[in-house]
Amino acid sequence: MKPREYFSAYQQQYLNELIELVSIPSISTMPDHLPDVRRAAEWVKAQMQAAGLTARLYETEGHPIVYGEWLEVAAGAPTVLIYGHYDVQPVDPISEWQSEPFTPAVRDGNLYGRGTSDDKGQFFAHLKAAHSILQADGRLPVNVKFVIEGEEEIGSTHLGAFIRDHRALLATDVVVVSDTQSRSLDLPAIVYSLRGMCYMELEISGPDHDLHSGSFGGVVHNPAQALCEIIAGLHNPDGSVAVPGFYDDVRALDDAERSELGRFPYTEEAFRHDTGAPASWGEQGYLLHERTGARPTLEVNGLISGWTGTGAKTVLPARALAKISCRLVADQDPARIYEIMKAHIAHITPPTVHSDLRLLHTGRSAFTDRRSPVMQAAIAAFEEGWGAAPVFWREGGSIPIVSDFQEVLGAPVVLMGFGLPDDGPHGPNEKFTLECFWRGIATSISFLHQMAR
Amino acid sequence: MKPREYFSAYQQQYLNELIELVSIPSISTMPDHLPDVRRAAEWVKAQMQAAGLTARLYETEGHPIVYGEWLEVAAGAPTVLIYGHYDVQPVDPISEWQSEPFTPAVRDGNLYGRGTSDDKGQFFAHLKAAHSILQADGRLPVNVKFVIEGEEEIGSTHLGAFIRDHRALLATDVVVVSDTQSRSLDLPAIVYSLRGMCYMELEISGPDHDLHSGSFGGVVHNPAQALCEIIAGLHNPDGSVAVPGFYDDVRALDDAERSELGRFPYTEEAFRHDTGAPASWGEQGYLLHERTGARPTLEVNGLISGWTGTGAKTVLPARALAKISCRLVADQDPARIYEIMKAHIAHITPPTVHSDLRLLHTGRSAFTDRRSPVMQAAIAAFEEGWGAAPVFWREGGSIPIVSDFQEVLGAPVVLMGFGLPDDGPHGPNEKFTLECFWRGIATSISFLHQMAR
Repeated sequence: MKPREYFSAYQQQYLNELIELVSIPSISTMPDHLPDVRRAAEWVKAQMQAAGLTARLYETEGHPIVYGEWLEVAAGAPTVLIYGHYDVQPVDPISEWQSEPFTPAVRDGNLYGRGTSDDKGQFFAHLKAAHSILQADGRLPVNVKFVIEGEEEIGSTHLGAFIRDHRALLATDVVVVSDTQSRSLDLPAIVYSLRGMCYMELEISGPDHDLHSGSFGGVVHNPAQALCEIIAGLHNPDGSVAVPGFYDDVRALDDAERSELGRFPYTEEAFRHDTGAPASWGEQGYLLHERTGARPTLEVNGLISGWTGTGAKTVLPARALAKISCRLVADQDPARIYEIMKAHIAHITPPTVHSDLRLLHTGRSAFTDRRSPVMQAAIAAFEEGWGAAPVFWREGGSIPIVSDFQEVLGAPVVLMGFGLPDDGPHGPNEKFTLECFWRGIATSISFLHQMAR
Repeated sequence: MKPREYFSAYQQQYLNELIELVSIPSISTMPDHLPDVRRAAEWVKAQMQAAGLTARLYETEGHPIVYGEWLEVAAGAPTVLIYGHYDVQPVDPISEWQSEPFTPAVRDGNLYGRGTSDDKGQFFAHLKAAHSILQADGRLPVNVKFVIEGEEEIGSTHLGAFIRDHRALLATDVVVVSDTQSRSLDLPAIVYSLRGMCYMELEISGPDHDLHSGSFGGVVHNPAQALCEIIAGLHNPDGSVAVPGFYDDVRALDDAERSELGRFPYTEEAFRHDTGAPASWGEQGYLLHERTGARPTLEVNGLISGWTGTGAKTVLPARALAKISCRLVADQDPARIYEIMKAHIAHITPPTVHSDLRLLHTGRSAFTDRRSPVMQAAIAAFEEGWGAAPVFWREGGSIPIVSDFQEVLGAPVVLMGFGLPDDGPHGPNEKFTLECFWRGIATSISFLHQMAR
């Protein structure tokens, strides 16, 4: 019996198991759910063992990491590390769910429930792929390691240190992550680029205490106004970032890449539908999906100063604060971005106020060459297992742990999206399309075989 | 016995009475002090009656207004209305007081306690002036009305309606307010100009919900950034307000006035001492005290958008809000300022976001001609009663009720400052200098006589 035949025979059982997993409310951010998070970890470990892997929990100061491995292929054979997470987001607003978030329900070919797509259904597809091969063939075509963490939704707090402390244990030729979305059922997507991050806090101060705007309005450079003036100086009128040197290290899009990304452009119409904003905005000379995927940006994430309650208070505030973050692309160093931001802000701060730009955190961008062998294996796997050639995609967001894997383990990362754009991962009525589950399992089976070649 | 001799004989008793009044913790904003506020009103009414006035309380939906009158001068004789307030500010931070705020203490010629200067000591000086004249002469030289309210520290909530509903009762030739500060004991000051107010709220919105800055950073015009860009467009680089028409109706300073105000300029050194700001700022071509007193200004009183807690959240906020207020000078109409602000903001709002400028409240500026007869009476009163010629001063703040008196009653307002700049009215260790109390009483006695001429 071949692995795919085995899986076909057992697919109802696999679905029942996924329903069991989704039923565990493993909300990592809520202390009340601590026992549920551990129950989910134990459940995943047991599933790994049932599949034929050796598995154990690694304790952290937060939630445990489930580690499983099967390493019986001869030395020198490739190793595949599969990453996922068993923790889920909270369920608010609960009133908007059509069925209970932790009582999974199948409707119209979809499995509804919190965590079905993000990420229980996606990583479980890989686990059932390994299970199917081991049951059918008695062995895997490559060595396989699973790292399934319980803190992805709260910032992967302890996973970075775990990776750095277990380089030998985790040594691998490729890291596979399925925690992203394909573009449609007919158009699977491989993300090959994630943006990095440089998150800062800008504080402008002037007087050493709040003043009465009647007595001092007109002679003090109002820090809230000065903050606005400085922030207005961070972009050029054409939408580009005005900080000198900001684009210096950006890896340019090549023509092949632009034409590939241009096959399925993000349209103005789709933009308006998704955002509700009156019109798009941004750096001239780049298409919308190039701006979010391939260009670095600078965003104001928050502003606070003075009186913000209802009604009026005639305060002239002593200070004003902004949260500012840059999304970075390949070859940009977050530490250097912070330095040039600091220099630019010092340069445009007038002598009438003080400015202080503080670094809160950074994360490097991640990038995998589309022409690398692991990408070729992923393409072949999608063609064979999913039944469609994948498109390559640049993701505007950041998954900091991906660059940790890449840098610490020195292995390329392949992000195979088994979800769909309408899965609603953090909202009510999250779902995972059953067809994605089946095709994900088949694609993973195929990928492990492709990696053996 | 002349009134000033009578007052000299009784000045220790007057001080004891003031101490009694200050001992009542009539904090109008704190519900716990409701009985104290009423006790203070009753106490003031009894004092009016003891002075020989007819007095009563007018109830409001908030704290009562104490009204007293003596109207026995022949018809056609002038009437003087004296305004003050018996309510006080809270006392926080209590730990910084050297003696209990409601256990008045005399140290170094000052009476310390909450409300001593603002405004119990100041209005009480006028009441003891009337008392002294009535006791010494059996009659006043002019008709006198007192309006002492209990809600000044909470925005004079009910006084405006009271004035509009009691035009006949309050009819007068002049309104005297002592709730401001002289420049020093040797340099009494008459405030002849108060700034008006137009308080607004500006909301910028773009997307119809908060977005992920990774997915949409670079294609959405971030409302927090757009708010900053719009606010940066409200001032010119020379510190003037960039809103077209903003200065159209401003009554210009004449040469005599500039030279008078220039006798005691607000220096850069004093500015730095008072504010702690690194350098002064503002409209070029005007001295510091001209900018605060004679020029309209535009201030940002508050900013709020997106994530403002500790640490980082990569939100692209759907909206951003600013509190913006203009201080206005004589002849500027707050309603017109709101209209031109709305037009300018609509004009500079790009098509990528929406803007909404809402009017929260307005107050007209107040201005009394320095050459008017009531001002001449006040000058003579200071010279005779205080023992020094007063300086005329423009106050940067607003006392909205002053323009209500001016407009509804059609009478000029004279602001005779019996306080001193270091009285600390809203802070800890508020004090009233005893010499100011004595000179205030003498000045008020003199003013009532001057008004009879």
